Amino acid sequence: MDIEQFVAQSIGEWRSMRSGHSLAFQQFEDVLSEISIKRFTEDHQKISELIQASSQPTNNQYCAPFCMEWNAESDWEPDDPSEVSSGSCLIVPIPMDKKSGKLLRSVGYAESAAAESDYRFLEDGTFILNTHYEQSIAEERIWFISEHVRCRSSVLKTSAGSGILQASFASEVRKIST
Amino acid sequence: MDIEQFVAQSIGEWRSMRSGHSLAFQQFEDVLSEISIKRFTEDHQKISELIQASSQPTNNQYCAPFCMEWNAESDWEPDDPSEVSSGSCLIVPIPMDKKSGKLLRSVGYAESAAAESDYRFLEDGTFILNTHYEQSIAEERIWFISEHVRCRSSVLKTSAGSGILQASFASEVRKIST
Repeated sequence: MDIEQFVAQSIGEWRSMRSGHSLAFQQFEDVLSEISIKRFTEDHQKISELIQASSQPTNNQYCAPFCMEWNAESDWEPDDPSEVSSGSCLIVPIPMDKKSGKLLRSVGYAESAAAESDYRFLEDGTFILNTHYEQSIAEERIWFISEHVRCRSSVLKTSAGSGILQASFASEVRKIST
Repeated sequence: MDIEQFVAQSIGEWRSMRSGHSLAFQQFEDVLSEISIKRFTEDHQKISELIQASSQPTNNQYCAPFCMEWNAESDWEPDDPSEVSSGSCLIVPIPMDKKSGKLLRSVGYAESAAAESDYRFLEDGTFILNTHYEQSIAEERIWFISEHVRCRSSVLKTSAGSGILQASFASEVRKIST
């Protein structure tokens, strides 16, 4: 598995079940959402801006940029339809070698500023993403169970010390259009 | 990471938050439980019986047998204290080489009969367990985030075909005795 293949396999519409675990408070949060992952082909200006705002040299080659959109419905307020969070994000991989590289995101996962992550692939194709935010460190893992089912875990730690803030897990099933 | 180290790291009392995702019905089940993992040192007779009942040659060397006990409280019936599931299980690893082997369990995860699994470690220490049951195939993954926090995912597929029945994820925090 390399980043090109990984992005190709991820392109599509996904139905996601995500459970968040607040470890300190032993609280669960279950969220259903729709995720759309599309190749980003149009606007090279946006890609250049993202690279320029990062710590990466602008002459590094990126590949397979994509855009992720999500619409989530939280279970905290089941009677309140306004409790829907949604967003979108441009993601630009910059491979260092076949198995690892950098990944730039216009919106971070744990904090809303742009984020710069290190990615690598394990020998079985598991994708691992490490991101240092100002207040926290996130480790995300994505692995495919089959062509149309993938799992995504993330763990958030405090950047000072070893406190674990939050773990979450999403199982994502591709929506097959008929 | 080898099986000896993995078992050593797992020994202890754990507080587990587990979320089950029924993918077909888009249903969540959140469960809090206590898990106790202890070295199994006493009863070699039970180990011999488990190996004899398996497909493994009885002269294969096992190592680091352990016992797992769990007490779970389901969220389906929050007002019904009888809705507590608990159990225990003897687990006997039989290493083939440093990174892989067989694992015998007196009680299976997906079906209650004894189970025989293949395990292997990925390069980052992630433990992967594959079990063929009569009706289903389970893939479990366990990885340590820190000395006292581990994640455990499992995915259950139908053994005929590629249907995914259930995914689940547990975040487990060691109970430090004071």
